[in-house]
Amino acid sequence: MILTWNQIVNLLGDIDVVGAIAAGFDADARGDVVIPPVGEMTFKDPPGDVHIKYGYIEGGSHYVVKIASGFYDNPELGISSSQGLMLLFEQKTGELAVVLLDEGNLTDIRTAAAGAVAAKFLAPSAIGKIGIVGTGIQARKQAQYLRCVTDSRTVVVWGRNTDHRNACTADIAELGFDTSTVESVEELCAHCNLIVTTTPAKEPLIRSEWIAPGTHITAIGSDTPGKQELDAEVLLGADLVVADRLSQCRQRGEIASALASGNFDESRVIELGDIVGGRTAGRSNDDQITVADLTGVAIQDLQIALAVYKVARAIDHI
Amino acid sequence: MILTWNQIVNLLGDIDVVGAIAAGFDADARGDVVIPPVGEMTFKDPPGDVHIKYGYIEGGSHYVVKIASGFYDNPELGISSSQGLMLLFEQKTGELAVVLLDEGNLTDIRTAAAGAVAAKFLAPSAIGKIGIVGTGIQARKQAQYLRCVTDSRTVVVWGRNTDHRNACTADIAELGFDTSTVESVEELCAHCNLIVTTTPAKEPLIRSEWIAPGTHITAIGSDTPGKQELDAEVLLGADLVVADRLSQCRQRGEIASALASGNFDESRVIELGDIVGGRTAGRSNDDQITVADLTGVAIQDLQIALAVYKVARAIDHI
Repeated sequence: MILTWNQIVNLLGDIDVVGAIAAGFDADARGDVVIPPVGEMTFKDPPGDVHIKYGYIEGGSHYVVKIASGFYDNPELGISSSQGLMLLFEQKTGELAVVLLDEGNLTDIRTAAAGAVAAKFLAPSAIGKIGIVGTGIQARKQAQYLRCVTDSRTVVVWGRNTDHRNACTADIAELGFDTSTVESVEELCAHCNLIVTTTPAKEPLIRSEWIAPGTHITAIGSDTPGKQELDAEVLLGADLVVADRLSQCRQRGEIASALASGNFDESRVIELGDIVGGRTAGRSNDDQITVADLTGVAIQDLQIALAVYKVARAIDHI
Repeated sequence: MILTWNQIVNLLGDIDVVGAIAAGFDADARGDVVIPPVGEMTFKDPPGDVHIKYGYIEGGSHYVVKIASGFYDNPELGISSSQGLMLLFEQKTGELAVVLLDEGNLTDIRTAAAGAVAAKFLAPSAIGKIGIVGTGIQARKQAQYLRCVTDSRTVVVWGRNTDHRNACTADIAELGFDTSTVESVEELCAHCNLIVTTTPAKEPLIRSEWIAPGTHITAIGSDTPGKQELDAEVLLGADLVVADRLSQCRQRGEIASALASGNFDESRVIELGDIVGGRTAGRSNDDQITVADLTGVAIQDLQIALAVYKVARAIDHI
């Protein structure tokens, strides 16, 4: 079975993506999921990185292999920076079950859904303004999927480039949000108690002293060693630091950067799936500062690919 | 572009597979190729292993990702033990260029072509009988591709199972070989001066004392830590030990097993591509014992996928 993005997009309406991703984190944190280290290739000219994520649920039906890339100069050519596809194989024979030619879109969506899961379980009870750092695809997708878990319909956007900022707020406004832009990340932090960072930054954008009590930050952008959006002090000062998968966050993401600073204690990190599954407490009051470090885990790819495959088979969409 | 195995098989006649694989080894040994560590998943029930191999030539047009699995109980279900596919992506944008739905066949072929390259550069000048250890797909494919590099048309087969042995010799006979079977690997070694091992054995099948001067052995089967076909003494006693890629053979294959024995000196290992490229001498006389440890390298996948893609584009086979 081969499904193109046009076919896949028509199936998504029948899928509870946020629920599927939450269930995946739960299974992973319970120890039911096998996920080897991420495969990675980095290109310099033009700049791009490729991630190969793969894994399976023990005793499950399939294993997933997902290839996703970010080539950040692509938009200048009129091409999406995100590219890739997902593959499901039978766990008992290795036979190919489905090729999802999603052109990177399912990766964008499962990433956004993870942001929604993090917000659902970690954001303060009353979300005022949502601050989004970055103006790319993921900035838009985060806003789109946050609608599933909060009634807040106010988004503040920061990005380096004014044109990109305006284009991004226009797109987010179409999703039903009141939008505005700010000139600095510091200003964004002053206005928002749910902040999502979505950039490929290699130097921290957010400083600890800008973060007010009662803020939740979801860091999405840092998925490769060398990328960093939050100063290590942000994690050191947070009441709760949550990883999508600790073994992966040791190698990449904000937790890896905080660990590299030498001051951060890994034993403080909680896995998101343990909060989803009710095995560990999440935020305990509205004054805490919480940080979720989402590096993107193969269980998310498996869950969204399986969900699409099941719906496609059910409606005989072959 | 998506090509099925039926389409691919029709293109293979226009491709010099052995030449393409040899050129790939040459480029890799020169240091022009980036190949990250192999991705791997191992399943127990039923037993299977999955390899994800990926990489690119610096400054080249594409990168490859190849997924190949061996599920050794598949034949009982009437399914090939080899499964998988190959993917080429644009190196400058990450866009998917082609999906080669080869069902594992291109992996089998590029593996056999590597055996032919090893035999071409390492076998003694007069090959008498070819000994093939194992009775699976790769046993047949090795015989098929060895025809490109030797005039010998005599094959001796050993395998544990009599029925499999007879089926295998029948298939190899159809390729134009005189075939026979033997009851033991020792007997096979006594008759043959070009030996190819193609099994998923986890205990050595070949002992050093069985190997006569003037023999070349190509070890194909061991591609995963834990698999081993040659006793470490075979490598210790060989005049020349050749790796398809040293960095990979440190982790898997016969060289990894010999290194684990503690007595083998890694600095003795030569890369096949350096012999192909004429930078290092190969066999220097007909009395030497030579061993090639072929673990299967992503450059082989890249080369065969590129070759198929180029022919498909040239004849507008989209």
